[in-house]
Amino acid sequence: MESLHVALGSRSYPIHLGAGIIDAAELYRPYLAGGGAAVVTNNVVGPLYLPKIRKALENIRTTEIVVPDGEEAKSWQTLNRVFDALLAARCGRDTLVVALGGGVVGDLAGFAAAVYQRGVPFVQVPTTLLAQVDSSVGGKTAINHDAGKNMIGAFHQPQAVISDVATLDTLPERELRAGLAEVIKHGLALDAPFFAWLEQNVERVLARERAALVYAVRRCCELKARVVAADERESGERALLNLGHTFGHAIEAAAGYGSWLHGEAISAGMVMAAELSALMGHLKKNEVSRVRDLLRRAGLPVAGPALAPERLVELMAVDKKAAKGKTRFILLSAVGRAALPVEVEPRLVREAIVAAAQ
Amino acid sequence: MESLHVALGSRSYPIHLGAGIIDAAELYRPYLAGGGAAVVTNNVVGPLYLPKIRKALENIRTTEIVVPDGEEAKSWQTLNRVFDALLAARCGRDTLVVALGGGVVGDLAGFAAAVYQRGVPFVQVPTTLLAQVDSSVGGKTAINHDAGKNMIGAFHQPQAVISDVATLDTLPERELRAGLAEVIKHGLALDAPFFAWLEQNVERVLARERAALVYAVRRCCELKARVVAADERESGERALLNLGHTFGHAIEAAAGYGSWLHGEAISAGMVMAAELSALMGHLKKNEVSRVRDLLRRAGLPVAGPALAPERLVELMAVDKKAAKGKTRFILLSAVGRAALPVEVEPRLVREAIVAAAQ
Repeated sequence: MESLHVALGSRSYPIHLGAGIIDAAELYRPYLAGGGAAVVTNNVVGPLYLPKIRKALENIRTTEIVVPDGEEAKSWQTLNRVFDALLAARCGRDTLVVALGGGVVGDLAGFAAAVYQRGVPFVQVPTTLLAQVDSSVGGKTAINHDAGKNMIGAFHQPQAVISDVATLDTLPERELRAGLAEVIKHGLALDAPFFAWLEQNVERVLARERAALVYAVRRCCELKARVVAADERESGERALLNLGHTFGHAIEAAAGYGSWLHGEAISAGMVMAAELSALMGHLKKNEVSRVRDLLRRAGLPVAGPALAPERLVELMAVDKKAAKGKTRFILLSAVGRAALPVEVEPRLVREAIVAAAQ
Repeated sequence: MESLHVALGSRSYPIHLGAGIIDAAELYRPYLAGGGAAVVTNNVVGPLYLPKIRKALENIRTTEIVVPDGEEAKSWQTLNRVFDALLAARCGRDTLVVALGGGVVGDLAGFAAAVYQRGVPFVQVPTTLLAQVDSSVGGKTAINHDAGKNMIGAFHQPQAVISDVATLDTLPERELRAGLAEVIKHGLALDAPFFAWLEQNVERVLARERAALVYAVRRCCELKARVVAADERESGERALLNLGHTFGHAIEAAAGYGSWLHGEAISAGMVMAAELSALMGHLKKNEVSRVRDLLRRAGLPVAGPALAPERLVELMAVDKKAAKGKTRFILLSAVGRAALPVEVEPRLVREAIVAAAQ
């Protein structure tokens, strides 16, 4: 097992990373006060891994809260059911919330922990590649609102993250690939050598070789931890990890939430961002090709859904990152080097969407 | 106008205090970025003071969100309506939320600001004595849940507090008295000379003499700011300001939320806490009398509702401050000197409730 340290002052925490570590009681014990634990999971992950969590929490008073699978669970209704269950079990400020599942469970349980009695401790046990690389660093928690994704949320750091790559054995192929989009994003935005490593090892990751998975997850967490430590509240450098997200959120909204996986939308969004960067003279054409080729080999989409580019441009204007009503984009000056957001004319944005679809 | 500084590192903020300052544009201007403002108020305070806020925010794009008066507004339903309005007006992370009203509006709007897009800036404009002395320092925000008050919330510091004692002219007498209970609590828990000042000046405060109001509000804010600066997350000293609250919350729950004002419940709760302190040998009998006498002169209740003491004891067991299932109380060792919570046998708690009712 390896452990990374996310340095955030009094909110610092470790990420424990390995294969077969999910049931190690000693990883949970430091965070269990007298108030027991409340495990939040969903009806797909729960049956697979709750038995292991029960083993880890043997002799600890534990409440199990099982929510439906899928993005729909990031709703007020489900959140309120979590609160009902916490209150019914008389959970207090000394109860540890354990989030067992992917990004949805992490976001929902993390937000519940952020606001239940004005904040209780929580531990993340991510069971998808996406959650292991993306949600487990940064402290972002949220639920959705009718008018947009992640509109209501909080920054709430976990006490610890326990990332067991063995849990990825049960992850559907499509979700593994979607998670890989986020892995590639870390290399593309921040780390050229890691992008090159992925060009050489993408098949090993897809084959779920544990050493390759541990390396990929660790490198992403290291990169993200460095960025987040410098910029916890996302005013500056952290925004670099939103590469592809302005496009991606619009794709998700256009297609209807859930029909594209987040990672798939980000994949197409990264190609659009790369094309936009090339159109604006920042990125070489052959680097755009490297981006497109790697995402293709990962089995990911490199163009958006079949609809008028204008529709995507419209949707971007209502995205929450549209400060002062203008749409801003993270661009690339090279593979491994993203730059802080700039405002771009809608005409160029449309051209980039068209270019990605070629 | 006077200004206090609440020292909380990067979350520090000023409290501006005076008579007739609510419409001073320069007090709002530092916190207005490009995203305009959203004023949250209720249907009683809004008609009285929205015109003044409009003057202060002249030429600023402003959304007005009017919620119903009363504790019921601290609900999911009302919170969601606030989010709907913020989203409909395309408010972003650079929109300033202005909370105009008493504690309910402050708690609701503050919590909305804490979690809307994971946190936007807000300014508090408290228009009740209770909110001016209690809610404007400490960053506590919350809504209620079926199973208890303030169960869902966040610590979210305002950018500034603008406390205009002239707005207390329109405050109903009963609410002024309820606010005075909190003022007395500050003296009783933390500051014997201030308690003595109140013994000499309580009639001036009740007559709404502006100099007396400014002094009382300022002293409370200073005391609370000192405590909060030392203990932002309420793990230690800050709990002293919960004097009377274990009893008080049970009284509110027993009577049905809203039938007793919070300050009224805290008043009776303080007498019970004083009686309990005397029963346990910590506080002299004549000091219990001073507490009771001052609260009486302030027109406040000194005993709980007419019901079996056992019922209150039961309700306290489900209070959120009941760590590990045992009920804990802030006790007094003297007027002006509260002590950190201790667990007390239910038998003594019942005796204290009976003694308060004598």
